[in-house]
Amino acid sequence: MPRTLKEIEAYLHAHIPIASAMEVQVVACGEKGVTLTAPLAANVNHRATVFGGSASAVAILAAWTWMHFSLRDADMNCRIVIQRNQMEYLLPIDGDFSVQCDGLSGPNFGKAVRTLRRYGKARATLTAKLLLKDKIVARFSGDYVAVLLA
Amino acid sequence: MPRTLKEIEAYLHAHIPIASAMEVQVVACGEKGVTLTAPLAANVNHRATVFGGSASAVAILAAWTWMHFSLRDADMNCRIVIQRNQMEYLLPIDGDFSVQCDGLSGPNFGKAVRTLRRYGKARATLTAKLLLKDKIVARFSGDYVAVLLA
Repeated sequence: MPRTLKEIEAYLHAHIPIASAMEVQVVACGEKGVTLTAPLAANVNHRATVFGGSASAVAILAAWTWMHFSLRDADMNCRIVIQRNQMEYLLPIDGDFSVQCDGLSGPNFGKAVRTLRRYGKARATLTAKLLLKDKIVARFSGDYVAVLLA
Repeated sequence: MPRTLKEIEAYLHAHIPIASAMEVQVVACGEKGVTLTAPLAANVNHRATVFGGSASAVAILAAWTWMHFSLRDADMNCRIVIQRNQMEYLLPIDGDFSVQCDGLSGPNFGKAVRTLRRYGKARATLTAKLLLKDKIVARFSGDYVAVLLA
């Protein structure tokens, strides 16, 4: 089970080839959230700004990464499925960007874990913000379902 | 200006490297809409189904492609910006998939072109469905703004 940021990054790149193509780096991954970065060059569109599809995909990945590793750390072996998501694009992203997913609060995560133990399934809505330097350039929200595996 | 499906595909791959990494193919592009396909292998997640971020990115690309080439065909040189989008994931996508974006109806497209001529700016909401063989596996909706360039 990957533990260091570099191991988590290698795990994402090995299992999700698009994460590798987007050159996603994991700069934080813990209880308090996940931060991923991605360079403009690998994610550019024909206007020299970040392609909306890349921005959206990195956000989806950040929220999934938080769910996946937080549940593993809680000894919950789950399949995590995205049900819906929305993105709001506020400003053009004309440089390397980062995605900060805060994860659930401690009490909400505890509640999700108890729901999983009791019903084998739990839902969570995760939000993330996309940043260019320290400016918020897009906002993400995604609904995920975790299903406990045997 | 690209004209054939292969030329449009080459344009997307040349200008949006992630389109190339996702191995997107253009199978239809015209007034009636755009259909893109993408293989499972290039877009897989750690569960051998399509990564939600790829599904979402191909849908964003399909709608953008329709806007871009439809406006070009109407002699409108525009910058097209995505403002928001949402995706609903209905079923796991465990194979090569396609995205069908219907584009705007003739009358609605005509209205958008007149708005662009008059105000230099027009908004459009485009929807797309994602298909695995002939089963709908996800739905996309995106709000785009076209800004007329000098």
